[in-house]
Amino acid sequence: MIEFLQKAKASSQIIATLESKKKKELLLEMADNIEKNLDFIKEQNALDMENGKKMNLSSALMDRLFLDEKRIKAMANSVREIALLKEPVGRVLEGWINDDGLRIEKVSVPIGVIGVIYESRPNVTADVGALCFKSGNVAILKGGKEAFYSNKAIASILQEVLQKHDLPKEIISLLPDSSREGVDFLIKQDKFVDLIVPRGGEALIRYVSANATVPVVKHDKGLCHTYIHSDADIKMAIDIAINAKCDRPGVCNAMETLLVDSKIAPVILPKLKEAFDKEGTELRADKKALEYINVKEANEKDFDTEYLANILSIKLVDGVNEAIEHISKHGSGHSEAIVTNNYEVAEKFLNSVDAACVYVNASTRFTDGGVFGFGAEVGISTNKLHARGPMGINELTTYKFKIYGNGQIRN
Amino acid sequence: MIEFLQKAKASSQIIATLESKKKKELLLEMADNIEKNLDFIKEQNALDMENGKKMNLSSALMDRLFLDEKRIKAMANSVREIALLKEPVGRVLEGWINDDGLRIEKVSVPIGVIGVIYESRPNVTADVGALCFKSGNVAILKGGKEAFYSNKAIASILQEVLQKHDLPKEIISLLPDSSREGVDFLIKQDKFVDLIVPRGGEALIRYVSANATVPVVKHDKGLCHTYIHSDADIKMAIDIAINAKCDRPGVCNAMETLLVDSKIAPVILPKLKEAFDKEGTELRADKKALEYINVKEANEKDFDTEYLANILSIKLVDGVNEAIEHISKHGSGHSEAIVTNNYEVAEKFLNSVDAACVYVNASTRFTDGGVFGFGAEVGISTNKLHARGPMGINELTTYKFKIYGNGQIRN
Repeated sequence: MIEFLQKAKASSQIIATLESKKKKELLLEMADNIEKNLDFIKEQNALDMENGKKMNLSSALMDRLFLDEKRIKAMANSVREIALLKEPVGRVLEGWINDDGLRIEKVSVPIGVIGVIYESRPNVTADVGALCFKSGNVAILKGGKEAFYSNKAIASILQEVLQKHDLPKEIISLLPDSSREGVDFLIKQDKFVDLIVPRGGEALIRYVSANATVPVVKHDKGLCHTYIHSDADIKMAIDIAINAKCDRPGVCNAMETLLVDSKIAPVILPKLKEAFDKEGTELRADKKALEYINVKEANEKDFDTEYLANILSIKLVDGVNEAIEHISKHGSGHSEAIVTNNYEVAEKFLNSVDAACVYVNASTRFTDGGVFGFGAEVGISTNKLHARGPMGINELTTYKFKIYGNGQIRN
Repeated sequence: MIEFLQKAKASSQIIATLESKKKKELLLEMADNIEKNLDFIKEQNALDMENGKKMNLSSALMDRLFLDEKRIKAMANSVREIALLKEPVGRVLEGWINDDGLRIEKVSVPIGVIGVIYESRPNVTADVGALCFKSGNVAILKGGKEAFYSNKAIASILQEVLQKHDLPKEIISLLPDSSREGVDFLIKQDKFVDLIVPRGGEALIRYVSANATVPVVKHDKGLCHTYIHSDADIKMAIDIAINAKCDRPGVCNAMETLLVDSKIAPVILPKLKEAFDKEGTELRADKKALEYINVKEANEKDFDTEYLANILSIKLVDGVNEAIEHISKHGSGHSEAIVTNNYEVAEKFLNSVDAACVYVNASTRFTDGGVFGFGAEVGISTNKLHARGPMGINELTTYKFKIYGNGQIRN
């Protein structure tokens, strides 16, 4: 492992200074190579599917694992899109001349070696590999064991292109030891690894955060709220609530708790129930809300639960302050929304809610790198530092200061 | 402790949204209050000085600890300067309208609760407290035990102003349990603390990095190099080398190793020796360099040592590639310089050296927030993520996305 990490670290200097044009060409070649090896990928994926059956994976997991021609072509196209993104390295973020006449430039540079830990979907291997490559970083990938053969096949296809161009294959590689011990070793190698990105279940993320000495950018849970204020447009509020909960209940930007202002509750709650009934949503309401709708009673645990299912907690609040307080206590700092036409209340909510994304009059479902216009998404960070919220390729860079002098010394 | 941290976390919402004007007024009041309490501070500082004598602190440490009228007034003036810095919160970093018609703004916001661990100099208490306050953060300060009474006095003077304005004193406070156990507890409270900034010895920083679950921005050692290329101006090279080593040998941006191109060595090495002899610098050179100057021989350990003293390692290298390689192996990623008039070589050095600050034809001594023009310095980060190199007050903020819609739902 140490030898592998040394090679990875050494490779990071090569990829960091690779020309923009060359990176683009190689990524396009990688995309072509994925399509050329369609049969090989399907064959290796079939091995994973077979094992998955033996392991009794759920049908949802089996579906995420499965690769057919359409999905493999989509994977290649995603690599093509990444190839054509604007060069993330070398952007001059700021520049000035200081009192000593030094010309100072703050310039984006690759982070170095990035370890990414993820689960099930094999297309992540190609996506993350391509994103790291485009941003000048070495990618050390650790996928789930259920996708072992698929990930290995995809990585080897990308590496084939690297080696054809005399580049070390360590620039995009799978972690050689993919056991729990391997991961534990990786997250402590701050001499060789500059960043760990865990994407997956809460237990994994908690384990990595607690044990890593390498900096971590988490992609954690989303316990998102929508607050319907008393000055909300009724139809808009219902549309947004339905969309935030029902569009895709299993994702991190879906709403888990609906806060309804007690002033508007008598009017809107029955209408909300009607709309959610049509969607088959299970509603769990607090005592006060039960005065207006006949549904299951919510307990305190419900307000701390990311259901990832078509279930919604409902709570009545007296004004924006109570809404903000509830969110501050129960939210995960991911995405929070208010529906209102009141300027002052909207401003208060936007400024006081401490979350990566705060919405007025829109669904939390928009929290997404693609939707934001970042082109490709690395993930949605629940960190506060370095990257927060949807992460585009620019967030895979750091910066350095280049200082141009003509003999200056400090007195 | 938990109760204290809960209060600190709760206070972070208050300070985060405090008006810019109010923050400025309070900081100016704090500065006045420091001057008003000059005698009290001197009295408390005397207790520390007495204990310091009993603990047999070195004269250097005693000097760092000591506060007189001049130093206390300088402390107050530093708080005044921070008061007048440009507001770091609410800067719109980017803004655009996406395909769905959502208006997206990326806006700077406070980080939340920041724990700062530092040593000896009591003025850091006022400085860091003021910097965190100005940037809308709660500061939990843990100074060295040698400055116990001075730090306590300064914190209470700042808190007096907070309480006069009905603000919780936890906004700027000392860690109640300042023992090793207290620190160990603090760095694991990611529910309450958003960032830890350790400033101090290597052992402290290594301990905090290895054990914290809270994100850490390190202020680590500086093992800085200067490389004199064959196309360097001889006089400029000597001036820069002398300045980088001798101006203040005990600081992190001082040079520890001088790399001399073998082509220019016969001409420049005797002249360098003459100049360094005048400064009383102890030179330790590798075998090749010893052919031109008669000094002590350097061993491999020397090239990995941050002397923090008037000692310099010298090594001959064959060209820029060997210089870059040596720096990549032995450097600490802090500040690195080249002296050359060759455009291609300068570009290569600037782009290939992986450090926070890379200089052409200037002394590494310029790595400093004040010199860079940041107004006040939080420290010099040796992290790659979030903040790298000199940290100004803007680096004490993170960002959030504010999204303004008019009823958008995602399809």
